Amino acid sequence: MASTHILSAYDEELQYLTRRISEMGGLAEQMCLDAVRALVNSDSALAQKVISDDVILDNGEREIQEKAIITIARRQPVAADLREIVGTLRIAADLERVGDLGKNTAKRVIAVQGTGVPRKLARGLEHLSDLALVQLKEVLDVYVSRSIEKAEAIRLRDEEIDAMYTSLFRELLTYMMEDPRNITTCTHLLFCAKNIERIGDHATNIAETIYYMTTGAQPEGERPKDDSSNMVGAAG
Amino acid sequence: MASTHILSAYDEELQYLTRRISEMGGLAEQMCLDAVRALVNSDSALAQKVISDDVILDNGEREIQEKAIITIARRQPVAADLREIVGTLRIAADLERVGDLGKNTAKRVIAVQGTGVPRKLARGLEHLSDLALVQLKEVLDVYVSRSIEKAEAIRLRDEEIDAMYTSLFRELLTYMMEDPRNITTCTHLLFCAKNIERIGDHATNIAETIYYMTTGAQPEGERPKDDSSNMVGAAG
Repeated sequence: MASTHILSAYDEELQYLTRRISEMGGLAEQMCLDAVRALVNSDSALAQKVISDDVILDNGEREIQEKAIITIARRQPVAADLREIVGTLRIAADLERVGDLGKNTAKRVIAVQGTGVPRKLARGLEHLSDLALVQLKEVLDVYVSRSIEKAEAIRLRDEEIDAMYTSLFRELLTYMMEDPRNITTCTHLLFCAKNIERIGDHATNIAETIYYMTTGAQPEGERPKDDSSNMVGAAG
Repeated sequence: MASTHILSAYDEELQYLTRRISEMGGLAEQMCLDAVRALVNSDSALAQKVISDDVILDNGEREIQEKAIITIARRQPVAADLREIVGTLRIAADLERVGDLGKNTAKRVIAVQGTGVPRKLARGLEHLSDLALVQLKEVLDVYVSRSIEKAEAIRLRDEEIDAMYTSLFRELLTYMMEDPRNITTCTHLLFCAKNIERIGDHATNIAETIYYMTTGAQPEGERPKDDSSNMVGAAG
């Protein structure tokens, strides 16, 4: 009986960590959605909400870290159980950074408010954000299902976001060249687009962590990690 | 004797992790230094070296992660020893990201090669990079000395880098407005400046991790985490 009791308390600790990760993931997703919405609608109240939500996410990461360390110290897990907890720490760190990216986007809402976001660029940002948030949502589902195939698929699909980002990057440059009055707003939008593209990178990180938690190995092959906007030269 | 032997093997494992972190830190620092040098001198061979060095850093993080998990599983440390190892994992992740920032800067060397970097902007980037790399170097020293006071000082000094970054951000906008032919180059330089500013953020993360490893508590007070370039509006 005693052993069962210990086991079940341990399972409860793991389940608690899993639940907290899902909660953090849901909040990070909502923050990024709200940030882009605030940006395209010049909604500074919504932007302010995203900025204050980030504190919840920061505290979430801290709490998961403390609980995870207590669990390691108390249960002294090995092999898969240990990987599970170490993986949880990594995922919590990625989700905290996703929240930071949402917050950074929200902070730029005020800077672009004077001019507003041109409709075409707004659609581009929304589309990029949709792609990135689908990746984030799916990787959070994979965190629950532990499907290795789906984790691999998410990792490979990051290229789509990168291509979309590079195209938006070129479009923003064109707007700036057409009219210097667009430069300040478009610069902030460039950083917002980069923030969104990086959400995709974090989803990829999380997919790799889940792969590692489940199999004990790193996924094979170079990840499609970087966008090609780096290469857009003066002629581009 | 047996117990002494076990203890000393454990100490060796911890020392190995510490040495690997210092090596990763040294390489990350060199990569960022080289990346900025490659940028201001349009040196694409040096940029290529930074890009290939990043693989070493990625492997370093992976190896530290594997070794750390083996150590936790084998030694089942608690309290300070456990924090030490968990902290090492976090620091390795921050250093891997610093390397990514160096690599991203290096990748932009080719994009700006056509036009070159105006002398005044080059000096601004070098100055920002000097500040950030001093932070990184000092935090790596604190990782060895474990001086809490110095960890706190590094954390608070990040504001200086943020202020310098915001001033460079404004300057880059001015260049773009003066002549639309500067837009593509200056956009890449904006991202390079942001990369460098983020090195300071990672140094701050590492300082907070060292504080946590040493004291078991999180440092008090809001960290000066974000730059104010977010706020630079169309009138700025």
